[in-house]
Amino acid sequence: MDDLLLRDVRPLGGRAVDVLVRGRVIAALGSAHSALTEIRCGGALLLPGLVESHAHLDKTLWGLPWYVNEVGPRLQDRIDNERRFRAASGHDAGAQSLVLAKAFLAQGTTRLRTHVDIDTDAGLRHLHAVLATREALRGLMEIQLVAFPQSGLLRRPGTADLLDEALRLGADVLGGLDPQAIDGDRRASLDLLFGIAARHGKPLDIHLHEQGEEGAATLDLLLDRVQALGMEGRVAVSHGFCLGDVDESRRAQLLERMARLRVAVITTGTASRPVPSLLACRAAGVCVAGGNDGIRDTWTPYGRPDMLERAMLIGLRNNLRRDDELALALETVTSAGAQACGFADHGLQVGCRADFVLVEAQNLQEAVVARPERKLVISGGRVVARQGTLISSATIAGSTTGA
Amino acid sequence: MDDLLLRDVRPLGGRAVDVLVRGRVIAALGSAHSALTEIRCGGALLLPGLVESHAHLDKTLWGLPWYVNEVGPRLQDRIDNERRFRAASGHDAGAQSLVLAKAFLAQGTTRLRTHVDIDTDAGLRHLHAVLATREALRGLMEIQLVAFPQSGLLRRPGTADLLDEALRLGADVLGGLDPQAIDGDRRASLDLLFGIAARHGKPLDIHLHEQGEEGAATLDLLLDRVQALGMEGRVAVSHGFCLGDVDESRRAQLLERMARLRVAVITTGTASRPVPSLLACRAAGVCVAGGNDGIRDTWTPYGRPDMLERAMLIGLRNNLRRDDELALALETVTSAGAQACGFADHGLQVGCRADFVLVEAQNLQEAVVARPERKLVISGGRVVARQGTLISSATIAGSTTGA
Repeated sequence: MDDLLLRDVRPLGGRAVDVLVRGRVIAALGSAHSALTEIRCGGALLLPGLVESHAHLDKTLWGLPWYVNEVGPRLQDRIDNERRFRAASGHDAGAQSLVLAKAFLAQGTTRLRTHVDIDTDAGLRHLHAVLATREALRGLMEIQLVAFPQSGLLRRPGTADLLDEALRLGADVLGGLDPQAIDGDRRASLDLLFGIAARHGKPLDIHLHEQGEEGAATLDLLLDRVQALGMEGRVAVSHGFCLGDVDESRRAQLLERMARLRVAVITTGTASRPVPSLLACRAAGVCVAGGNDGIRDTWTPYGRPDMLERAMLIGLRNNLRRDDELALALETVTSAGAQACGFADHGLQVGCRADFVLVEAQNLQEAVVARPERKLVISGGRVVARQGTLISSATIAGSTTGA
Repeated sequence: MDDLLLRDVRPLGGRAVDVLVRGRVIAALGSAHSALTEIRCGGALLLPGLVESHAHLDKTLWGLPWYVNEVGPRLQDRIDNERRFRAASGHDAGAQSLVLAKAFLAQGTTRLRTHVDIDTDAGLRHLHAVLATREALRGLMEIQLVAFPQSGLLRRPGTADLLDEALRLGADVLGGLDPQAIDGDRRASLDLLFGIAARHGKPLDIHLHEQGEEGAATLDLLLDRVQALGMEGRVAVSHGFCLGDVDESRRAQLLERMARLRVAVITTGTASRPVPSLLACRAAGVCVAGGNDGIRDTWTPYGRPDMLERAMLIGLRNNLRRDDELALALETVTSAGAQACGFADHGLQVGCRADFVLVEAQNLQEAVVARPERKLVISGGRVVARQGTLISSATIAGSTTGA
C-alpha cells in the first residue's frame, strides 16, 4: 500500500497539519511530507474513527418495510414480542447486521461492539450470522461480538452452554442481562457469568436496567467479582440506570469502586429515564462510552447509525452546553469508547490505526451539535466512504489510488 | 394565482390522492382534477406545514462563527451572560432572526411563534428587528411575536411599560417568566401580566421553569386568573417543568383545570430535566405543542430549525415507541402546535391554508424518526423550497409556474 497524505486537516479542531499514513497506521503529523497519493482537505475538521460501544446489529430492521409497533410497555413485553416476531418473520440477522454495519461505516464508525442474541429458541443462529458480517468487513471495520442472553440466563436452562459455545466459536465478549430483575438471583446469575468469562479469559459487558437499590445491590456484587477475579479494566456495565437514581452518597460509593476497578459505563443517554450522570462519572474517574442500543427494530422505531448524533443525544441528556463539556460528549464516541471496549491503537497520534472522519465544521463542538455530512471516511489507511456513502465494495477490496 | 395540483401524494401516510390548491387554500382532495400547474409527487408523504410553537429567533447566532460557551450553570448566569454578550457584541437581532426564520421555512415550518426579548437595557430594539422579519416574510410564513421579559418584570422596573408599548406596536402575545423564581412575587407578577394582556386583548404565553410545588403554586394562581378573566383557550404555559415533578395526584388536579380552561403546554421535551408527560397531558385533555426553544445561542449550542427533529426529541423524551404514540409526537409540531398558538386554518382539510411539506417516507412515523429531506415545501399555495433549500427570494416573491 502506498503512503497516503492528508493535506491541511485540523485534528479535533486544532491548527492545520498534514497527516502521513503509512500502511494502516499514522506515520507522522506535521508538514513538509509528500506521498504518491495526496488528498487536499481544505482545512476540514479531522476526527478519529468513531466508536459504537453498544449496538444490536442482529436485531435491526434497517432498510426493511416499516415495522408497525404495537408492543406493550414492559421490558418483558418487548423481549417476548421480539422472540415471537422472529419465529414468525424469518428475520435474517446476517443480511441485516451487514446492512447496518455498512451504514455505520459510511458515517465514520470504524470500531463497533454489538451484542448478539443467544437464546434457547434461536440457539447460535444470530452468532453465526454476525460472525459472517464481522468476517465480511474485516480490515474495514473492527467489530466485537458480545454473546448476549437476551431472554435471560438462569431462567432459560441451556443458555449457559450456548454462551460457552459462543465464546468458543469466536465471540469476543460475554454479555449478561439484569441478574436480579430478569434472572431472579443476582448472586447465582453473576457467579455463572463470571465463571464462563473466566474460563474463556474474555471480558464482560452486562446490561443493567435494574433501577435504584435493586441495581445498586447487583452492581456491588458485580464489583466484588471483578475484584476477586482480577478482571480490572475488562468489565463494562451497559445502561447502569441505577447510577442515575440512587442517592448521591450511594452513587459516590459505587463510582469510587468502579473507578478503582476500571469498570466502564456504556450509556445511550436515554432521555426518558434516569441515567448515569456523565459529569459525575468523569469526576469520579469512571470511563463513560456511548452507544446507540437498538436502531429501528421491534424495540424502538428510533435511531440512526451516526455516532455524532449519539454524542449529541448524550450531550442533551447530560445538559452539556459548555465547549469543554461538548468535548466530553465527543469522547464517549471516540477515545472513551475505545477504552471501554478495549479497541487498541485508537486516536490521532503517530502509531495509531489510520481511521479518520473528515467533516466541515469549525471545531469538534460544532461537529457534535450539527452532525455534518461525512466528507471522507478512512479506515485502516484506506478511503472507504465519501459524502456519507460507502464506495463500491470492489474499491473497498482494492487499494486507494485517487484523491 | 393559477390553480396548483399536487398529483399522487399520501396525506399523513393515507391512500394516495391529488390535492387541488386554489389561491392560498386547499380546494379539493381526491382525483380527476386538473390545473395549469401540476406537480407529480410520486406517492410522497404529505404533511401539513410544520408549526414551531416556541422559538427565540432574536437570540440565535445561526450562521455566525462558533460561540465559545463558558457560561455558568444557573438560569441567572445565562440571563446575565446574554445581556453582557449583547452589549459587547452588537448582536443584530434583525439579520439573525431573518436568517433563522428562513432556515425554518426551508425545513417546512410555515407557522412560528417566537419570544422576543424586551428589557430595560435593550428596550424595544429586538421587537422592532423581529417585526421587520415578520414583515419580510409576510405571506410566506406566519410569525407570532411574544413580548418576552427575559430579565424579569417586577425586578426590573420599567419593563411593564415596555411590554405595554410592545403590544401596541404589534406584538401578538404577551410573555412572562417565572413569576416566583425570577420576579419573587407570583401574585403581583401575574396580576401585572394579566392586566397588561387584558388591556390589549392579547393572549399569554408564560415561561414556567419553576419546579415542584413552587411551580405548581404559580400555576394555580395563573389558572385562577385565566378563569376570572375569561381567558379560556388564550393562555399557554411554556416548559411547565413543575408538571414533570409534582406527585401524580397534584399533577392530575392541575391538568384537570388546564384542560377545562384550555391552557396549553408548550414543551421542548428537554432531556435533562423533568418535563410534563405528553401522554398524561393528552389523557387529561391538555393540548401539548412542541418547540425548539433557543437554537445556537449563548444559552445552548444545540438545535436545528427542523420541527421533525423536535418531534423526534419529544418522542424520545416521552418514550413514545408505538405507532399511535409517534402520531402524537408529530401532532405537537402540527395540529396541536396550531391549536396552542391559535394559528387558524391549519391542516390538510379543504378550506385550510395550503401549507405542505413533502418527504420520502413510508408513513408519518418514519418521517418523525428519520427526519428526511424536505423534497418540497409549499406555503400559502406557493412552492417556497425544494430539497431543503429555499428558492431564491425573487421566485418566492413571484408566482409558481414550474413543476
